[in-house]
Amino acid sequence: MIPVDEAFARIMAQKIELPVAEVSLEEAVGKILREPIYADRDFPPYHRVTMDGIAIRYESYLAGEDTFRVEGMQLAGAPAQTLTHKDECLEVMTGAILPKNTDTVIRYEDVSIIERRGKRYAHILAAPKMRLQNVHQQGSDRKATDLLIPEGTLLSPAEIAVAATVGKASLKVTQAPRVAIISTGDELVKVTQTPLPHQIRKSNSYMLQAAMREQNVLADVFHLIDDKSLLLDELQQKFKKYQVLVLSGGVSKGKADFIPEVLQELGVEQVFHEVAQRPGKPFWFGKQAAGPVVFALPGNPVSTFVCYYKYIRLWLRAILGAAPAWNLQAHLTTEITFNPKLTYFLPVKVFISATGWRAQPVPIGGSGDFAGLLAADGFLELPPDQIKFSPGDTFPFIGFRS
Amino acid sequence: MIPVDEAFARIMAQKIELPVAEVSLEEAVGKILREPIYADRDFPPYHRVTMDGIAIRYESYLAGEDTFRVEGMQLAGAPAQTLTHKDECLEVMTGAILPKNTDTVIRYEDVSIIERRGKRYAHILAAPKMRLQNVHQQGSDRKATDLLIPEGTLLSPAEIAVAATVGKASLKVTQAPRVAIISTGDELVKVTQTPLPHQIRKSNSYMLQAAMREQNVLADVFHLIDDKSLLLDELQQKFKKYQVLVLSGGVSKGKADFIPEVLQELGVEQVFHEVAQRPGKPFWFGKQAAGPVVFALPGNPVSTFVCYYKYIRLWLRAILGAAPAWNLQAHLTTEITFNPKLTYFLPVKVFISATGWRAQPVPIGGSGDFAGLLAADGFLELPPDQIKFSPGDTFPFIGFRS
Repeated sequence: MIPVDEAFARIMAQKIELPVAEVSLEEAVGKILREPIYADRDFPPYHRVTMDGIAIRYESYLAGEDTFRVEGMQLAGAPAQTLTHKDECLEVMTGAILPKNTDTVIRYEDVSIIERRGKRYAHILAAPKMRLQNVHQQGSDRKATDLLIPEGTLLSPAEIAVAATVGKASLKVTQAPRVAIISTGDELVKVTQTPLPHQIRKSNSYMLQAAMREQNVLADVFHLIDDKSLLLDELQQKFKKYQVLVLSGGVSKGKADFIPEVLQELGVEQVFHEVAQRPGKPFWFGKQAAGPVVFALPGNPVSTFVCYYKYIRLWLRAILGAAPAWNLQAHLTTEITFNPKLTYFLPVKVFISATGWRAQPVPIGGSGDFAGLLAADGFLELPPDQIKFSPGDTFPFIGFRS
Repeated sequence: MIPVDEAFARIMAQKIELPVAEVSLEEAVGKILREPIYADRDFPPYHRVTMDGIAIRYESYLAGEDTFRVEGMQLAGAPAQTLTHKDECLEVMTGAILPKNTDTVIRYEDVSIIERRGKRYAHILAAPKMRLQNVHQQGSDRKATDLLIPEGTLLSPAEIAVAATVGKASLKVTQAPRVAIISTGDELVKVTQTPLPHQIRKSNSYMLQAAMREQNVLADVFHLIDDKSLLLDELQQKFKKYQVLVLSGGVSKGKADFIPEVLQELGVEQVFHEVAQRPGKPFWFGKQAAGPVVFALPGNPVSTFVCYYKYIRLWLRAILGAAPAWNLQAHLTTEITFNPKLTYFLPVKVFISATGWRAQPVPIGGSGDFAGLLAADGFLELPPDQIKFSPGDTFPFIGFRS
């Protein structure tokens, strides 16, 4: 039996090289970028007008001019016009390129437009404060060839917008690993079946599939019965096709718990078996030399949940190439006593306050009570070297809701 | 011009009835449940063994028996066996149904198994503490017909697992609205085009599409040029097909800003135009009597971002039928001064600490600098009735990363 931190470190040390896939911009959000994105030109690419109004030469204003004849209009999307008389002006629209021979924009609110003998004049009401006022200067945000988005970035809508701007209609992202979720346990029947009194329907594999889908990893789901030679055969087949296997059930000390034995016969090297935690203690983890990484989770639904969110989710994120997620923390609201020298994953509901997140324990009937999880938002990770956990103390929070 | 809270309230007051769609369990995660889910039988459905060991009658132990002959084995997934002699026992596996005539499980760690003349005996080393020890009692978590998941729940992997258990291979969820994202602005060219010096590539519409995709709303994207009669025609077409229109650009006071005018000509009733906020002040919002809800956002990328995350995201969540999201809050790390009587959406990067989230302002070159957003995680919402914002003070945090 090894401590939780040691189990976590050994899992994170298992690397998988994942290939690059090219996806359309539309499909790229939530995926991990596998190419650097550079500015193809300056940001903004031209002196960009930021207010509707008039463009003048600042020099002319300084020289005493306060009424400017309007020569014409510079619309957004039109090539730059040229101001022909230095003491005149051009109307300009937000987003337009600043006309040549002008350097300052005064917004409509600060001028009065006068019509006189068929001509338009702009009379200045509020003095411009400086040259380049209301102009977003070319290259002021980024210069052409600047690195905008480094490899390994988890693509949010902000990166999608920037990628569009530099002309990337598709992006190189990490291709998700091929994952098989395999439940075992002869008490399990299909969702569409009516179970006999001693049977229950499969649920862990759907939970795992849904959780991975939220990480953009689409996994295949299988069920195998507790027959040793059949398990050997079927798992060997899966080893050829999948890079990651997540098994559920069959890892405890029961008479039909063949999984660790079968995996070792198949050449999967055991990295650990049993972690000093509750729930999820019988967790088995290993790696086949030229084959898949294998997570074999206890079959109890709450254990499966804890092992996924504490270990597998973060490992998947790491092999996809993303930076670690935020380490959320929350204050315990009520005293908890837990005697065993195990890390305790306490189901909690969280509330957000100005002084941080508060985590309220959710009563749950042991690791088989996953209906109890419906009232929870995640788990508080309580360390093994403590028995009493006081209200107000802060612990890592592992959430499964958004 | 109306305050932010008023704009938010007016938006949230616009309801759309969305139909129900039936999706497979696999596709249901992240969607909103539109049927109540009940327990089809007790949870657990039988007295369920929670430890590998032996099952006895507690009465026999109390009567002084401490060594029990093993009659056989109860595996998980097998129909309940019956203990024939009260003073004997059955081996039992985790997940199995408790055998008839037994009521207490003693784990292997607490017994010693002895073979004598071809028979197996279990000698008790640690006394059982109570009847029903190591038994997850039938119906102790939930009773048959109990409501497990109410309508309106945002489906996390926990709900998916519970739905599988009660035999739901598919679930009724809210069908996403039909959304069109329409950019305008003659300075905009396609992502695949090389822009002329006065042009830029479209990016807002991709940003909006990506952000909605993260909410399971797949929107169609269009671009229209700044021509009034063309806008009238094209928008009328879109009104027939879509329930929600999100326009980007053309809502300021510029000469080519036809959008509010065109929308009103098309019978869209203006709910508001201009919100007391920066960025995003020219935001226009309206509703056509028998037609779509229309969000017309300013074309500046940062404004578009703020308007989406502050208003549209939460409105979409509400019309889909979900409970409001968590109201995140963060402490400002450095002093900020902002004079105008406007709500200021300050771009920030967040850090998580034991005393809550800390929000560090990200330098950004105005509402056109969306490359500046790459360093940010979201916005801090600073109220309009204040000029100085002190370090340590707490404000609502609107995030766009996970």
